[in-house]
Amino acid sequence: MANRIKVTFQPENRVVEASPGDTLLDAAAQAGIYINSLCGGEGVCGKCRLKVLSGQVEMSSQGVGFLDRKELDAGFVLACQSTLKDQDVEVWIPPEARQEEEQILMVDNIVHYAEPSPQEAGTVPAPVPYYKPLCDKVFLKLPEPTIQDNLSDLERIYRALARKHPDVKWESDFACLKDLAHLLRKNNWEVTALVHCLDAQCHHVRALEPGDTSKRTYGVAIDVGTTTIVAQLVDLKTGKVIGVEASHNQQARYGEDVISRMIFACGRGGVDPLKNAVVTTINSLIHSLVAGAGIQPTDIVSFVAAGNTTMTHLLVGLEPCTIRVEPYIPTATRIPWARAAEVGLTGHPDALLHCMPCVSSYVGGDITAGVLACGMNDSSQLSALIDIGTNGEIVVGNNEWLVCCSASAGPAFEGGGTKCGMRATKGAVQKVRIHGDRVEIQTIGGGKARGICGSGLIDCMAELVAEGIIDQNGKFIALDHPRVRVTDGVPEFVVAQESESETGEAVVITEDDIGNLMKSKAAVLAAMKILLEGLGLQFFDLDRLYVAGGFGAHLDIEKSIRIGLLPDVPKEKILFIGNSSVAGARQALLSTHAYRKANAIARQMTYFELSVHAGFMNEFVAALFLPHTDESLFPSVRQVLKKRRGA
Amino acid sequence: MANRIKVTFQPENRVVEASPGDTLLDAAAQAGIYINSLCGGEGVCGKCRLKVLSGQVEMSSQGVGFLDRKELDAGFVLACQSTLKDQDVEVWIPPEARQEEEQILMVDNIVHYAEPSPQEAGTVPAPVPYYKPLCDKVFLKLPEPTIQDNLSDLERIYRALARKHPDVKWESDFACLKDLAHLLRKNNWEVTALVHCLDAQCHHVRALEPGDTSKRTYGVAIDVGTTTIVAQLVDLKTGKVIGVEASHNQQARYGEDVISRMIFACGRGGVDPLKNAVVTTINSLIHSLVAGAGIQPTDIVSFVAAGNTTMTHLLVGLEPCTIRVEPYIPTATRIPWARAAEVGLTGHPDALLHCMPCVSSYVGGDITAGVLACGMNDSSQLSALIDIGTNGEIVVGNNEWLVCCSASAGPAFEGGGTKCGMRATKGAVQKVRIHGDRVEIQTIGGGKARGICGSGLIDCMAELVAEGIIDQNGKFIALDHPRVRVTDGVPEFVVAQESESETGEAVVITEDDIGNLMKSKAAVLAAMKILLEGLGLQFFDLDRLYVAGGFGAHLDIEKSIRIGLLPDVPKEKILFIGNSSVAGARQALLSTHAYRKANAIARQMTYFELSVHAGFMNEFVAALFLPHTDESLFPSVRQVLKKRRGA
Repeated sequence: MANRIKVTFQPENRVVEASPGDTLLDAAAQAGIYINSLCGGEGVCGKCRLKVLSGQVEMSSQGVGFLDRKELDAGFVLACQSTLKDQDVEVWIPPEARQEEEQILMVDNIVHYAEPSPQEAGTVPAPVPYYKPLCDKVFLKLPEPTIQDNLSDLERIYRALARKHPDVKWESDFACLKDLAHLLRKNNWEVTALVHCLDAQCHHVRALEPGDTSKRTYGVAIDVGTTTIVAQLVDLKTGKVIGVEASHNQQARYGEDVISRMIFACGRGGVDPLKNAVVTTINSLIHSLVAGAGIQPTDIVSFVAAGNTTMTHLLVGLEPCTIRVEPYIPTATRIPWARAAEVGLTGHPDALLHCMPCVSSYVGGDITAGVLACGMNDSSQLSALIDIGTNGEIVVGNNEWLVCCSASAGPAFEGGGTKCGMRATKGAVQKVRIHGDRVEIQTIGGGKARGICGSGLIDCMAELVAEGIIDQNGKFIALDHPRVRVTDGVPEFVVAQESESETGEAVVITEDDIGNLMKSKAAVLAAMKILLEGLGLQFFDLDRLYVAGGFGAHLDIEKSIRIGLLPDVPKEKILFIGNSSVAGARQALLSTHAYRKANAIARQMTYFELSVHAGFMNEFVAALFLPHTDESLFPSVRQVLKKRRGA
Repeated sequence: MANRIKVTFQPENRVVEASPGDTLLDAAAQAGIYINSLCGGEGVCGKCRLKVLSGQVEMSSQGVGFLDRKELDAGFVLACQSTLKDQDVEVWIPPEARQEEEQILMVDNIVHYAEPSPQEAGTVPAPVPYYKPLCDKVFLKLPEPTIQDNLSDLERIYRALARKHPDVKWESDFACLKDLAHLLRKNNWEVTALVHCLDAQCHHVRALEPGDTSKRTYGVAIDVGTTTIVAQLVDLKTGKVIGVEASHNQQARYGEDVISRMIFACGRGGVDPLKNAVVTTINSLIHSLVAGAGIQPTDIVSFVAAGNTTMTHLLVGLEPCTIRVEPYIPTATRIPWARAAEVGLTGHPDALLHCMPCVSSYVGGDITAGVLACGMNDSSQLSALIDIGTNGEIVVGNNEWLVCCSASAGPAFEGGGTKCGMRATKGAVQKVRIHGDRVEIQTIGGGKARGICGSGLIDCMAELVAEGIIDQNGKFIALDHPRVRVTDGVPEFVVAQESESETGEAVVITEDDIGNLMKSKAAVLAAMKILLEGLGLQFFDLDRLYVAGGFGAHLDIEKSIRIGLLPDVPKEKILFIGNSSVAGARQALLSTHAYRKANAIARQMTYFELSVHAGFMNEFVAALFLPHTDESLFPSVRQVLKKRRGA
């Protein structure tokens, strides 16, 4: 057996045992400490900087390339590129390398489905069984058998179920028969059936419980985000959300973004650590929800999860490897229902997990859930749904057709790929106002600045161009502005000065950062434009623009339009729907019909693969301008610009 | 730990270890030796006589009551009533207590279902998908995905399946996704899907295998008889039976008949030994079938079992306890499909077991299978199906209605309840001719007589009444006949003399035996008459009478009519269909449609509970006559009788 050495992580003074040859990132993961590693430990993002306080590690030349002389002298290393030697080490994790609690968007603006009131039901000519949870419990008080009424135990149950739900074929799981005879006779012929409403025609009894447990029928809707996982506890008998919890996706320890996790899963790491991480995260949310609501975990009989295609694959333990390489093929877009216990989720032993159906490798169940939640597929109005994150997913359509595409926006809006970028956590600059030489900033939490998050970057860009500090190409022109400086030949704008910063180093946005952000926003807008043009449509034709995603809630719509991230449509047409992923999952939880509709949405949706579209590159290049090379697309921005030019 | 002692069974010299306190019957069962025990070890049938050669056992007073002085002196004991003491014993199993290989009716006269030929198909206006095995394999050669054709792996499989089987909804098991990506890419996109044809609308992929394994697609149809189990190996691609095997149901060690096994299962024994015994029996048949056909056990993807309701329960491990007591309720009549591996059957790990649906506690899946096999439910002719065994099950009906009942015939026709009765095994007298003083017998195997089986008893009764040795009440009248003697005050007829007997003791039929046989035949006929009369019908109204069951093949139809076991209908209307249970199971194996039809048969069949019918006892009493007190019911027999009376 190899020597075991001690690694001490500061400032928590957490100690973990490791073996020589392990990387510092491995050791941190073993200790349950999350270190920023956007690239998943590939040594290409340079985010996992730690400072070695005592002892020595061996860093690869690739790691050395990421650090300057001053940093190297101070003992900084990249955690993923530094292997442990045969000696104990003590390291310090600087604030910017830490992952901390975020402001997480848990709620959504989607109304809950509820059983139609009698009046409403009366006005509907052909009542659709809309409120019918995917999994439900039905209490049955059976008549005792006699010579005259001598149906078998199981047929007796079917008959009672058919009386409550006529016009449905009933079947059951073989396992239900075990001890059924005793169950009925010991419990005065009173049992509760756990029913899986497969579809409108056929319902399946999955389990039978003694007595009446139907009052305790709960489900959990889950938004399996790459960064954040949100879970809603829903009372399936009333449709009410009785608890919401959210936390960081613990998968982050294996890589910040989807691609780095794919690399991990398809490399030496394998899929299991990622699956276990997301399941552990969800289970911790379930424990909080259950404790908060005062119910038992076994009261949860149903789970619906919505996530992008890779997250969905990882949740159920499928390798996402073929998703990543051309021709980008997932194992499945419609995942068959699984036993939640088999997946590892805490709940009733016979609870089921349904995943929201995906459309393709890069349009996932979160988007299908989003369409379901906003209901754009039910309206004759022309609507678009835009979900901005690392991938910008866009859906356009109405009740007759749906077309979607996905544009790789890059991590810029989530704080990646920029010098001082960070996610929307404590210390992130989220608002920036520039008045001449004066710069006002607002950080999350109100304390000193640690970095700048997506909404801060958008604010900043919009202000820089409005103030004429950068031009519409994103190039610095006001090099004499007191906040503009040049570092290593690259101009940058000092958003937070050394004195305003927690680390003592200025928080800046560089010309390269702006270039990256412009590429991101250009990709999203070009994708949307290409998609619309392919349909013979323009931005102005949209009746409704739904903006979704955790990012969406922090977004300053006006400034987003100003930099050309969102199209210049009247603001009253733009609707925030918040976390539409969890909202759609909840709808499916409450309605077999809604789940089937989601499947229809996924099937119906035409996926438009941008990477093979000849016109995309032209549109992308045209959008690499603030707001756009074609000013006529942004009439409201043009007016502002005109005013300024006139001034 | 208790002392272990040795029990030696002769004549095989088989030695088994046992504990003091075990019964000799327990010890024999542990050794895998089958001893006749009609009553299942309850000490009421007296069949399990063994002779103690050395050592001592302790016999209960109940056991002592079954043996006469001579037997006791010779060391005979009842195995079930004798517990082992703290010493080794050696016992001898006499021939009549042994169970040996039987003449088992394995085949049936039912034509195989085959895919309709193109000509036939052309003439059918709306082709019914009749030939569609419940479980099947489908080979798929998938096109490799491209950017343009970027369906997920699973949807690609669905598309290929839908091209082969359009108009069907496809779904799959969650387990199919595991390693699917590798499976396809490592095997040049060639896979074989194991498909469960749930119903006409929906097919379910249960497993995926590399390459083309579709040539190896086999199923097993099983008749789970109380006494005998018959299994047919069927090539699901051609519908052909490629092997048949049969053997004793090893459950017999726990009791000869259904009731004694129920008592065992619901008493201290529990259901597991019975379940294991029947599964072991079936697996041994499968091994023979597989070896004979030169295939692998994993080539078997489908099982269909037909058995009476109790046998069906025991096969799948369900307690049959509520079947036995009023109001006679089975746990299930339609058993949901089960994974065959879970039940313990040898085959493909994803093979399924379907049980033929039962009607009620006393009309089982064997009868449903029989109706399906003879097709009486498809014909406008009025037909009856009669399956004679321990229970006589009777179905009457046509394509519009089906009514059935079950009469407890008792074990007389299977060799129980009679002094020298035995099953149709080697040494059983199966044919008897009486010419005045001369008696001719024929034994199974041609050797010396050991006892007399059901067909021999029927022959014997018919001859005794024809020769005027007994009267029509079954009472001996020719007490001066050289073969008639009186033992312990009961008259008996010597069928085989001491010199013709293997044991050296005469094989006889007593007046009590005849009384028991008359009760059995009266029960069957009365049941049929009550059933028909309840429908406003008479025996003469029947267009067709199907006779089924292992017993049926040995039955002399004319003599069966002569004693009033079968009704006096023209012989050309009577059809042997042999083992209709296995035939029906095979049809279901080959046709989802047939299986659904069997479910419809079971649902449609009206069960007529005789035990609550006021008229049954009158009819039963009226039938306690040879052939019947109402001679007009038996016109052909009346003619024979008249001739004799005239003579």
